[in-house]
Parts: sequence; C-alpha cells; structure tokens
Amino acid sequence: MELDAYLEHAADQVDRLIDRYFGAPVGELNRAAAHLLSAGGKRLRPALMMLSADAVRRSSSDELMPAALALELTHTFTLIHDDIMDRDSYRRGVPTVNHRWNEATAILAGDVLYSRAFSFIVGAIAPEAARLRAVGMLAITCDELCLGQHLDMTFASRDDVTDGEYLEMVEKKTGALYAASASIGAVLAGASEPQIEVLHRFGLACGVAFQIQDDLIDLLAPAGTSGKDRGSDIREGKSTLITITAREKGIDLSPYRHPLTEAECEDVIGLLADHGVIDEVRGRARGIVRDASALLKILPDSEEKRLLLALGEYFVARGA
Amino acid sequence: MELDAYLEHAADQVDRLIDRYFGAPVGELNRAAAHLLSAGGKRLRPALMMLSADAVRRSSSDELMPAALALELTHTFTLIHDDIMDRDSYRRGVPTVNHRWNEATAILAGDVLYSRAFSFIVGAIAPEAARLRAVGMLAITCDELCLGQHLDMTFASRDDVTDGEYLEMVEKKTGALYAASASIGAVLAGASEPQIEVLHRFGLACGVAFQIQDDLIDLLAPAGTSGKDRGSDIREGKSTLITITAREKGIDLSPYRHPLTEAECEDVIGLLADHGVIDEVRGRARGIVRDASALLKILPDSEEKRLLLALGEYFVARGA
Repeated sequence: MELDAYLEHAADQVDRLIDRYFGAPVGELNRAAAHLLSAGGKRLRPALMMLSADAVRRSSSDELMPAALALELTHTFTLIHDDIMDRDSYRRGVPTVNHRWNEATAILAGDVLYSRAFSFIVGAIAPEAARLRAVGMLAITCDELCLGQHLDMTFASRDDVTDGEYLEMVEKKTGALYAASASIGAVLAGASEPQIEVLHRFGLACGVAFQIQDDLIDLLAPAGTSGKDRGSDIREGKSTLITITAREKGIDLSPYRHPLTEAECEDVIGLLADHGVIDEVRGRARGIVRDASALLKILPDSEEKRLLLALGEYFVARGA
Repeated sequence: MELDAYLEHAADQVDRLIDRYFGAPVGELNRAAAHLLSAGGKRLRPALMMLSADAVRRSSSDELMPAALALELTHTFTLIHDDIMDRDSYRRGVPTVNHRWNEATAILAGDVLYSRAFSFIVGAIAPEAARLRAVGMLAITCDELCLGQHLDMTFASRDDVTDGEYLEMVEKKTGALYAASASIGAVLAGASEPQIEVLHRFGLACGVAFQIQDDLIDLLAPAGTSGKDRGSDIREGKSTLITITAREKGIDLSPYRHPLTEAECEDVIGLLADHGVIDEVRGRARGIVRDASALLKILPDSEEKRLLLALGEYFVARGA
C-alpha cells in the first residue's frame, strides 16, 4: 500500500470512531466538544500510533483504535484551548469553538475532550500494565504540550530566541504528542524497551520536522494553498527556524513586518534563498528525520516499517 | 481521634506532598500552576479518599497518598478554570491565576494540574487493575464536572430552574468529585463492589449536601465569616435550593436584587424563615446525608467508619 492510501484508510477508521462517539452530541457542551473534532483533519497522530503498533506486532492496531482516538482527542483539546489564547476565529474551515460559542464553553469543551482521551486510552484492548503505562505517558505528554504552548507565547515578546530554544519549544509543543503517539502504540502492542525508545525518538523527530516544514510552507506555499495567509510569520515577526536562521546570518527582516504583497513575498523568499536560509532550514528538517529513521533498523522489516519511514519522508516533503 | 484533628492531620499530609512536588516550581507556568494549590484549602476531598480507603482496609491510605493529591489537583484545576469563566479576581485570600497572570496562563496552569492528577493516580501503590479503574473513574468524573459547570452557567440566564435541575447540576459540579474521592479510595484499597457502590453514593451525598450548606452559609453566616459578601446569591438572583424553594412557595425575592444592607439581609432571612424555606432546605441537606450514611452499615465498624459518618455530619453542620 502507498502511504497516501494508508493515511486515507487510517483517517477513515478514526473518522468512523469519531462519528460513533461524537456524531450525535447531546447538549450544548457536547456539541461544542464535537465541533472541531468532526470538522475533519488528517488524523496523522492516530496514523502514526497505528503504524507503530503494527510495526511491533502485526495487526495489533485494530485492538488499539480507542487509543488512536485518544491521541486525536488530545490534539483537538490543545487546538481548542490554543484558539482561545490566540483569539483565533477560524480553523479547518469552520469557526473556532471560542468564536462560535464563547471562551467559557471553549475552555470546558477542551477539558471534556481531554477527559475522554483518558477514558479511551483505558478502553483499548491491551494488558492492564501497558494501558496504565500509556495513561502515564499521555499525562506527561500533556504537561509538555502546555509548557510548549507557554514557551511559544513567551517567544512572541522576544526577538532574541535562539535556534536551541526554538527547537526545545517545538519538541514540547508539537514533537511530544507525535512522540507519544508512536511510543504509546508501541507500548500497547507489547514492544520491547529498545523498540519503545526508538519509536519515541522517531515520533519526536517527525513532530519537530512537521513544525519546521509548516514554517517553510507558511512562506513558500503558493497563496491560498496553506490555509494561512502567505508569509504571516514574517509579517508578524514571529520566531521560527527561518527567521532565527536569517537573524543569525545578519539578514534584517524588519522591513517586512507589515501585510505583504505577493511581490514582497517573492522578494523575501529570494533574499532568504540567496543567503542559503531556506536550504539550511530544509536541510535541518530532513536531517532530523533521516537520523531518527536510521534508528528504526532495530524493528523487523515489514510493510508498516516501510510506511513509517515513508511517513517521516512525507513530513518533510509535503507542500513545499 | 476527633474529626477536627483527623482533618488537620489529613491536610498536613496533603500539604507536605504539595510542598514536595509544587513547592519549588521552575518556570512561570509551573509557578502559576502551583499558586492556588499552595494557597491553602481544607483538602476535604483527599481526606474523604483517605478515610474511605482506611475504612475498607486499615492503613491503606498511606500507600495511596499520590491519589489523594490527584483529587486535590483535579479540584484545583477546576477552580482555576472556573475563575477564568467567572472573571473572579480573588480566591483563598490570594489573586486568582487569571488575575495575577492572565487568561492564557490560567488555562494552561489548569491543564497542567489536570495532567499531573493522572500522573499521580498512576503513581499510587495499588494493583494495576485498580489504578487503571481509578484513572477511568477520574476521567469520567472530570467529564461530569465540566457538564456541571456548564449547566451552572446556563442557569444564570434562567429564572425557572427547578429543584430537580438544580440538584442534577450540583451532583455533577460538586457531588461527582466527592463521589470519585470516596470510590477511588475504595477501589485502590481493594474494596468489594458493594463497598465501592455505597462509598460512591456516600461521597456524592456529601458533595451535594456540602453545596447546599454553602448556599445556606452565603445567606446565614455573619458578615465577614464566609469569605463572600453576605447574601450574594439573593442579590445576584442566582438559582440555589433556597431561591428555588422560595419561588415555589410564591415568595418574591426580586426586591432584594441589589447590594444588601445588614438589615435587608435580616429581612430576607426572616421572610424565608417565616415561610419555612430555611428549615426545608436544611432538612433536605440533612436528609441526603442521613440516607447515604445509612448505606455505610455494610462497612465493618472501625474508627475510620465513625469518622466518615462524622464527616457527613460536619458537611451539613459547618458554619450555620
């Protein structure tokens, strides 16, 4: 199976579960909790969990679908709370929960999804010790997600963020949940400790590379294809690996801190490309995935291992 | 041991754990998460958990202290998020997290404590199956707490809330976590199913009675002793068992929807007392605790069972 087809298949399975458990919400709070979840999404964290589980023990993911759903619920919970903090109004083509309802309802809707995540992890079909460990892993991960989001907010008021600080933030904000997805899949499928360890590191690398690629897409993707307005990070003076690398190379991006025309976007891309910023950032994302992919050699060869490696590649190839 | 001494001893144990794990927070988010937790509190939910565990199996609570802490963390997480929704500025004599920091930090601080609650439940010393069940119980409870808070908010815009609706809201918003405290203590201590069931019902009753008593204290406690300004529920036209019972008896409280002088407070108390509202509400709280206390007869006689019964009495006798 090609990766595209696998991702579609995995998303279908997750969407079916979402439809079963959140498709007919009763009461306003449950409707608010189901809103963003039912608005679609690529379901990449569940897919990574399923592939990791199946790479460890063939076909084990069928019994672990509640845990796959738990990871999507956790992701959605953080999106709902992040949208409140960022005062965002739209996501995935629908109004955010804070916009369609209000802040209070959005806080509670996030909390509800987070609670259900733990209920679903408990409901996976796996030995008690493995499920208990998965619960602990999810709890620690959420702690990290919060720290990552908080770091990200503090960066907004700074113009001296280093690439080390940026990568630490991304590891927590985005990497941690991918790491948990891969390693929880491994734990529930009965993996050995070394297998759990490498899948954790692989997931972390995928998450970090995913975020760096997102930053590249923000700048490079043709207008209207990324879902955000092009060059928004540059316009807002946001710290990303691109802007940090540019600063370290002595490039002054401050003239571009205003709404950018297409021509200005092309200018700034040209400037960054000429100084090797884009190649360097792209190279780092690819290096992170390549190094982590090499670790997977301890897994037995299988269709799922091949798809895991393809997923890593996909994370640094998509949209740019 | 008298109940007072026991509660002090239990709070000391919980405070020691809070000091160990949250006493030297690193970073701004951890400081915000520790803030309200370290500001004191009666630690009644941990005390109920400890007594329930010890009533099932003597001295078992020593091994379950991480779970006792988890219940206090869950309680504090809901307080932090509720304070954002209610735009409250002070609690327990200190600024709320949303007031001292900001809303975004308060959302994350609540989420962090909630994550840690699950970590600590996992960390209790008890069989894996029992801990896993406790995790599931805590997750379902948080779901209910959110529904209860949401119901409470919707009541603010209604003047036709029935006593049945009010009690359903209180069961979720306040009762559920007391029910979880008692039953999680029982589960972790290795209780039989009937023991778990009656302790759950006893905890639920305690929580509901606690809230009704809070409403009585809001009105009846001498100015300056309850921590809130006296008669605030009447002033705000809030639905409580007192105002609902008054409405059902045809008493019009709308003339009192403004800041109340002490004399006006005495007037409204006299009015409600004359119509038997206060006796009726107090009688319901006591009846709820009495009925639930009777269920505890299936527990073996012990010092802890005696203290559990005293705790139920305390909930309906305190401050009024």
